[in-house]
Amino acid sequence: MVQFTQTRLDASFSALSDATRRGVLERLGRSDASITDLAEKFHMTLTGMKKHVGILEQAGLITTEKVGRVRTCKLGGRALQDEAAWIDKHRRLWEARFEALDRLVEDMKRKEKRNERRKG
Amino acid sequence: MVQFTQTRLDASFSALSDATRRGVLERLGRSDASITDLAEKFHMTLTGMKKHVGILEQAGLITTEKVGRVRTCKLGGRALQDEAAWIDKHRRLWEARFEALDRLVEDMKRKEKRNERRKG
Repeated sequence: MVQFTQTRLDASFSALSDATRRGVLERLGRSDASITDLAEKFHMTLTGMKKHVGILEQAGLITTEKVGRVRTCKLGGRALQDEAAWIDKHRRLWEARFEALDRLVEDMKRKEKRNERRKG
Repeated sequence: MVQFTQTRLDASFSALSDATRRGVLERLGRSDASITDLAEKFHMTLTGMKKHVGILEQAGLITTEKVGRVRTCKLGGRALQDEAAWIDKHRRLWEARFEALDRLVEDMKRKEKRNERRKG
């Protein structure tokens, strides 16, 4: 289960590491679109866009459906929950460490002031 | 500026797309560590760990400092703000679309019930 989540996070963060793919997700956040629409919007060949769409689909971030000659793309159901959870958990750890560092610096400043007052 | 953020997001999401590198960030969330410590913890050669550390450092997620023969790694100052912001914005869009879909389904159900009552 843990291994499964790790593999999924590998795939989804990798899918997110490209500005065009992030743009496609933003675009699909507004409405579904065909690969032709997406290729036009991002000034790209159909082949290039198909590759990006394939990576997003494999990562489970979008789904596609072919009706006749048109393949329509829509957002997948997962909505980046695991990715957001990982980043949030990590940020909390990170902030806790910076707060501890802040407290340490404040503490040192207070001690320094006390010593100065004693000397003065 | 926008281009700069996009390039940074490319690098940081790419850095996050590997379970070992996410593990290194989690480990550094608890305390600073040398590359040797990290290589041991993740059962990896020094060369392999140096490569991962280099990718995390280039993405601005960690900083390293060499004192004598030991290179110490610590979390960078950015704490994944931009990455969290991108994912949050995207999730909001996504949820809004699913809510709109839910409302549509509810609406259809209500209409259906009303029609059934009229017939009955």
